[in-house]
Amino acid sequence: MFDFTLEATDWFARAGTLSTPHGDIQTPIFMPVGTQASVKGIHKDHIMEIGSQIMLSNTYHLYLRPGDETIAHFGGLHTFMNIDLPILTDSGGFQVFSLGNMKTPQKNSPSPSKGEGARGWGKDTGETTSLVKITEDGVEFRSHLDGSKHLFTPERAMQIQANLGADIIMAFDECAPGTSTHSYARAAMGRTHRWASRCVAEHTEQQKIRADKGLHPQALFPIAQGVIYDDLRVDSVKYVSDLDMPGVAIGGLSVGESKPDMIRILDAIAPHLPSSKPHYLMGLGTPEDLIEGIYRGIDMFDCVLPTRLGRHGVAYTSRGNIKVTNEKYRLEKEGIYTRPEYSTMVSRTYSLGYLRHLFKVGEMLAGQLVSLHNMEFLLNLSREARKAIIEGRYEAFRKDFWSEYTGG
Amino acid sequence: MFDFTLEATDWFARAGTLSTPHGDIQTPIFMPVGTQASVKGIHKDHIMEIGSQIMLSNTYHLYLRPGDETIAHFGGLHTFMNIDLPILTDSGGFQVFSLGNMKTPQKNSPSPSKGEGARGWGKDTGETTSLVKITEDGVEFRSHLDGSKHLFTPERAMQIQANLGADIIMAFDECAPGTSTHSYARAAMGRTHRWASRCVAEHTEQQKIRADKGLHPQALFPIAQGVIYDDLRVDSVKYVSDLDMPGVAIGGLSVGESKPDMIRILDAIAPHLPSSKPHYLMGLGTPEDLIEGIYRGIDMFDCVLPTRLGRHGVAYTSRGNIKVTNEKYRLEKEGIYTRPEYSTMVSRTYSLGYLRHLFKVGEMLAGQLVSLHNMEFLLNLSREARKAIIEGRYEAFRKDFWSEYTGG
Repeated sequence: MFDFTLEATDWFARAGTLSTPHGDIQTPIFMPVGTQASVKGIHKDHIMEIGSQIMLSNTYHLYLRPGDETIAHFGGLHTFMNIDLPILTDSGGFQVFSLGNMKTPQKNSPSPSKGEGARGWGKDTGETTSLVKITEDGVEFRSHLDGSKHLFTPERAMQIQANLGADIIMAFDECAPGTSTHSYARAAMGRTHRWASRCVAEHTEQQKIRADKGLHPQALFPIAQGVIYDDLRVDSVKYVSDLDMPGVAIGGLSVGESKPDMIRILDAIAPHLPSSKPHYLMGLGTPEDLIEGIYRGIDMFDCVLPTRLGRHGVAYTSRGNIKVTNEKYRLEKEGIYTRPEYSTMVSRTYSLGYLRHLFKVGEMLAGQLVSLHNMEFLLNLSREARKAIIEGRYEAFRKDFWSEYTGG
Repeated sequence: MFDFTLEATDWFARAGTLSTPHGDIQTPIFMPVGTQASVKGIHKDHIMEIGSQIMLSNTYHLYLRPGDETIAHFGGLHTFMNIDLPILTDSGGFQVFSLGNMKTPQKNSPSPSKGEGARGWGKDTGETTSLVKITEDGVEFRSHLDGSKHLFTPERAMQIQANLGADIIMAFDECAPGTSTHSYARAAMGRTHRWASRCVAEHTEQQKIRADKGLHPQALFPIAQGVIYDDLRVDSVKYVSDLDMPGVAIGGLSVGESKPDMIRILDAIAPHLPSSKPHYLMGLGTPEDLIEGIYRGIDMFDCVLPTRLGRHGVAYTSRGNIKVTNEKYRLEKEGIYTRPEYSTMVSRTYSLGYLRHLFKVGEMLAGQLVSLHNMEFLLNLSREARKAIIEGRYEAFRKDFWSEYTGG
């Protein structure tokens, strides 16, 4: 279980297959995000129909509502959502910082971002605030719902994720802001590494308990950190790669650093990523991120933008993003433009004029349809990228993508 | 085209088939409502999958946004929505009264209802107000969106509906409040009859124009009125039945009168409904309405309640309505209860505990799923009622329904 086989490589780009208790995942792959055990506005049969191979859900949100023990009562996330797809849960490490003190944001606090996964961290001085208390033991935070205090430790994160029952679970990490000083970034990375080892130990215990209950095994992916410092990033990737776990993740690259910083770091770590394990870039997944991440050896992506943008009428196209509500689409009989190989159920079915109408009159179907389109677009992009890698033409594929994407 | 054949009758209850340019409709049938060219929150493939045979859309709303000429530009409602189902549009007659002066509701005005199709008409004195001006020519009303003035006449309603391009279109009527005096009700009925004749004349012209353009034919259904007065109701049904049109509708029975009044009127008119034409009861379509309407010879129903209730967490079951958000469902692993023959995609797929969770955390999928369930429940009820009629056991079917529905 959790074997990762590489079918092809093309420079750093890779085409692989990861096996899980709920089926194989062909990489590179975009993973739709179901924060609260629901991909916003999307029925599960559509999640399947657009070719999703794995979906995400969020430990922080599910721990607060309905509670991980409630989900365990239902037999875990798969039966709770009644979906037969591999599922990945994050550890809550990201959300306790981005949401854990949203209600009373303070200057110098590593907040306030608007919702999960947003690039919205505030200025950072390398110090923690009174609302999110980081100690060697773990992180004390306040619920963004009612201000109640909670403590996440590496052990607790493993126990909660064992209850949630995803196929792939994530180590508990400290996700330091993109503006952290080198010394703070190094300290946070050290904690993240020590926490990763504690996660591994507790995970091993939890897997025994799950096996005794007849529950499927879970894979733990540790997370590399290091903010924007190449030396730390390389050290961290090496550290987590050496843990005897079936995958590695790169965290902390959607928290306020610039795109050039992100690209430089991906370049720096690419030679050090373990070839035998899948590489997951956390919280990133625009069309550009996919193209450039895959180029640098990333296998797995997730992002809430396709659904968030979709709800606001922004659609991915092969020529860049468009605003569906634009007046110029009022009488447009064509659907959202994509190249034929990226066409989606929504782009084939509905005219831009109809989609615009739905937004203009406030019909909830509007956001649902464009969200669905955006996710399918990313899944198509993953599939076409995989083909290009297998055929040894990823570099040309990437250039071709950019040529139309920026020229459109 | 628009032939109506009766397969079976069981006392007043009927099982028939109505042919339209977009396919046959097996009656009795519930018709989902897509007010603004969208059934709220429901994808068209789900509209098809739950067994819908025809859907509704609203002339008043579409005339205001995006405009009937815009929809004509897209080739009519079928291509605008890209749906291959028969469509019925109302005439706007109901909405100009219920929505035409919502922004500045006044005492004695036949408003203020909250949205389309609601039973929410105010007290009526039998007089019109300054905001909705009724003359022999037609009705002047104000847009509920921006207060702008508009005039609907029988001719205009036919022209607009010819542009919208539904299969079945409705005559323009005066929908007097359920509390109208006999003398006002008679006057309104008289206008409705004269307007029906003007609709027939203009409709005949519009059909010639459509035929010249190669567009499919449309059927016009005139509407019987008469408020709660049996004598007027019978007169009106006779009048509209005598018009040489392929169907008849009963309007004004969802505008503030009581359930016993409605049942008494349906009893009074049942013997006078034309056996050779379908009978459409406008704006009514709860499970109870279906059971009792079918019993009294009604073939077609529409109602926004299944989706409106669904968005608020109220689900139809074989034992009456339930509130999905109820605390007692927190750990419930079973789905929404229905008898096996009424089970829906949603009731089979999702636990009440999961549906409750989605409502509690504010996921938009929650309302979508319960709306879809409610519509499929009504379609299943239509189908089972039809079977019972064909097998000559509708009376027993009805008793059985009520026994469980009220005992649950």
